[in-house]
Amino acid sequence: MSTVEPFDAVDLIRAKRDGHELETPEIDWLVDAYTRGYVADEQMSAMTMAIFLNGMTRREIRDLTMAMIASGERMDFSGLGKPTSDKHSTGGVGDKITLPLMPLVATFGVAVPQLSGRGLGHTGGTLDKLESIPGWRAEITNDEMFAQLRDVGGVICAAGAGLAPADKKLYALRDITGTVEAIPLIASSIMSKKIAEGTGALVLDVKFGSGAFLTDIDRSRELARTMVELGEDAGVATSALITNMNVPLGLTIGNANEVRESVEVLAGGGPSDVRALTVALAREMLALAGQPDVDVEAALDDGRAMDTWRRAIRAQGGDPDAPMPAAREQHVVTAERDGVLVEQQALPFGIAAWRLGAGRARKQDPVQHAAGIDLHAKPGDVVRKGEPLFTLHADEPARFARALESVEGAWRIGDAGDPIDDGGPLIADRIGR
Amino acid sequence: MSTVEPFDAVDLIRAKRDGHELETPEIDWLVDAYTRGYVADEQMSAMTMAIFLNGMTRREIRDLTMAMIASGERMDFSGLGKPTSDKHSTGGVGDKITLPLMPLVATFGVAVPQLSGRGLGHTGGTLDKLESIPGWRAEITNDEMFAQLRDVGGVICAAGAGLAPADKKLYALRDITGTVEAIPLIASSIMSKKIAEGTGALVLDVKFGSGAFLTDIDRSRELARTMVELGEDAGVATSALITNMNVPLGLTIGNANEVRESVEVLAGGGPSDVRALTVALAREMLALAGQPDVDVEAALDDGRAMDTWRRAIRAQGGDPDAPMPAAREQHVVTAERDGVLVEQQALPFGIAAWRLGAGRARKQDPVQHAAGIDLHAKPGDVVRKGEPLFTLHADEPARFARALESVEGAWRIGDAGDPIDDGGPLIADRIGR
Repeated sequence: MSTVEPFDAVDLIRAKRDGHELETPEIDWLVDAYTRGYVADEQMSAMTMAIFLNGMTRREIRDLTMAMIASGERMDFSGLGKPTSDKHSTGGVGDKITLPLMPLVATFGVAVPQLSGRGLGHTGGTLDKLESIPGWRAEITNDEMFAQLRDVGGVICAAGAGLAPADKKLYALRDITGTVEAIPLIASSIMSKKIAEGTGALVLDVKFGSGAFLTDIDRSRELARTMVELGEDAGVATSALITNMNVPLGLTIGNANEVRESVEVLAGGGPSDVRALTVALAREMLALAGQPDVDVEAALDDGRAMDTWRRAIRAQGGDPDAPMPAAREQHVVTAERDGVLVEQQALPFGIAAWRLGAGRARKQDPVQHAAGIDLHAKPGDVVRKGEPLFTLHADEPARFARALESVEGAWRIGDAGDPIDDGGPLIADRIGR
Repeated sequence: MSTVEPFDAVDLIRAKRDGHELETPEIDWLVDAYTRGYVADEQMSAMTMAIFLNGMTRREIRDLTMAMIASGERMDFSGLGKPTSDKHSTGGVGDKITLPLMPLVATFGVAVPQLSGRGLGHTGGTLDKLESIPGWRAEITNDEMFAQLRDVGGVICAAGAGLAPADKKLYALRDITGTVEAIPLIASSIMSKKIAEGTGALVLDVKFGSGAFLTDIDRSRELARTMVELGEDAGVATSALITNMNVPLGLTIGNANEVRESVEVLAGGGPSDVRALTVALAREMLALAGQPDVDVEAALDDGRAMDTWRRAIRAQGGDPDAPMPAAREQHVVTAERDGVLVEQQALPFGIAAWRLGAGRARKQDPVQHAAGIDLHAKPGDVVRKGEPLFTLHADEPARFARALESVEGAWRIGDAGDPIDDGGPLIADRIGR
């Protein structure tokens, strides 16, 4: 051990283990020393479990977030000459909202620098979805990103490796050590990237329910409050919507089919829940960026948002008119009786789409862009015996059996007047100023 | 990931994290998979922190212990034709009891297979002490050990790498991740080695107080109870003494000087506390091995224990008559006034001896055999102004300053009739049948 290090990792682990608060210089050192490899993975792993079980104060979470930001570069959009506003979702089944939302908000002159990731597990990644558009590139340079924000107004692209490298290292560790779901760690992970990204305003879509990362609405509220506080403390105007993820969002779960549905919303149509959440989040993003009173819905209905979308896709090499990939095999599931669809559980449908090839089990796996599920009915819809309820798409028919296994018992047809088991309204709460 | 593994490490970590019990096959797999490197250090580190904070049931601790035993070889002394009895101390300042205890018990025809370790930190290691005897070898073969148990009756030697390798790997990990003090982990670590070692009876010297590993007597009792249960469950007759480590044991702290004091006890003299604890532990070891009524003290007073000691030292290449190494430099601290020594704190004196060179900071460091402290007075003794209170020994005079710093305020001279601050009687409790 070098004698120039101001702290000892074991002392800090023991302090957190025994329920003490870590001081600001201790957290700064810990994150820095971990980033440069002086604090070992096994030490950080014990620390994250101690944080998981003993928690962190608001001040500690802020320190952790700021230390992770300080571990890398920080972007600055002040030279753009217009306000910036971004959105982050904690992830859900069928959640393609970023796709119509970015061009919709950009249409009003608010720049949207949407740095996104790829999916792991049953919730898909925004980049995976967009990569089903022929030619579209997720990786662009900072200069290209600035130019697109100036000329088109919005960009969805891969976050560079330079943003919060401590978070990247820590997230990979948490993933294999069972410490992903700790609120201080989730909040600091998300917010360090978003604050480093340099957005002026941020809206969080924090999901709850069976298909969400956190199933319990109270924990989702706690996460949202923690992140809103972190944003405000860092000078980013931040608010959060607490939204329902008991039922898949929209009628598509996958990649190419989710792009198609997003384009329907941009054309003024699309499923009502996808349109409603897109509009609600756009209003939040615009209000935080100083435009509380614009007519968001008009920009969907009159084609302005669609124009922005097409320019953004083209700017990244994509062809918005190219035919989307189609899967080689389909399997249709039909209604076994007349009635009303009263239940459609998000998690099993998300896992089924993942098993069909839409998601990845390991970081290095490719996704199959045309794999996924099209839903033909949503809870509350009348269904008739023999009519299609949903269609599975896969390139390899061998995948259908395990996908069907995972959705077994995940939907239910009842009678007119039966209560609909969908966990309540789409937008359950709002947190922020 | 291979699909033939029956469990997933992350699932088991999450189960323990969320307060669930791990099943026997899960614990068996975890220890085996960790030993062969399939479960990573960072995963085991998160698991040990979860165990630290959420605990383990008696059944889980037993499973963990048995799985660690199963990770390596298990010794068998049944061919010796006599009972075996061993002692383990949780470690303390000036604790040299193993040295006189082994030959004392062996004198009564009970074999003592004392597999020991080296010290790390402020509590010394038995092998480090014995290695100050010129020629003495800690590393002997299993055949040599059997022969010595048969011919001499007792042996103190290094534990082979084949005993409980999972424990060795786990202990090194706990050391750097702040999870040493968890009772399930301490208990399974100690008992897996002792049970694998194959002793028929085992007496535990579980210390409490300022110089002990666990300072609180209730936690020491809990550790003792846990270990006694583990021993009994594994068919080893086990008991524990709960002993006071608020004050250094005896008048020497170091290596060569502790050997000298041990030889004094074997000659029928020595400090009363060292003799008393040696006798109490010998009675326990002999009683558990079927000899409850022998006259232990007589074997110290009539030279029989000394004879066994000399034969044991010679059997391992040592010369019991060789002069012991002496330190190049001395520093004497004298009494600042007339009075009674009312306080002498174990931990600061242990740290001082360690800083003088008697202990090691890192596993690979050597110890300086002649470094240490000789105490000239114990709590309750009358002292006179200007008379020596204790002498520091070191090979490098530069070490005295930091050693003196650590004992500053660690002793106090009061007046006749003042209460003695020594934490109570030497043997506070006994746990076992």
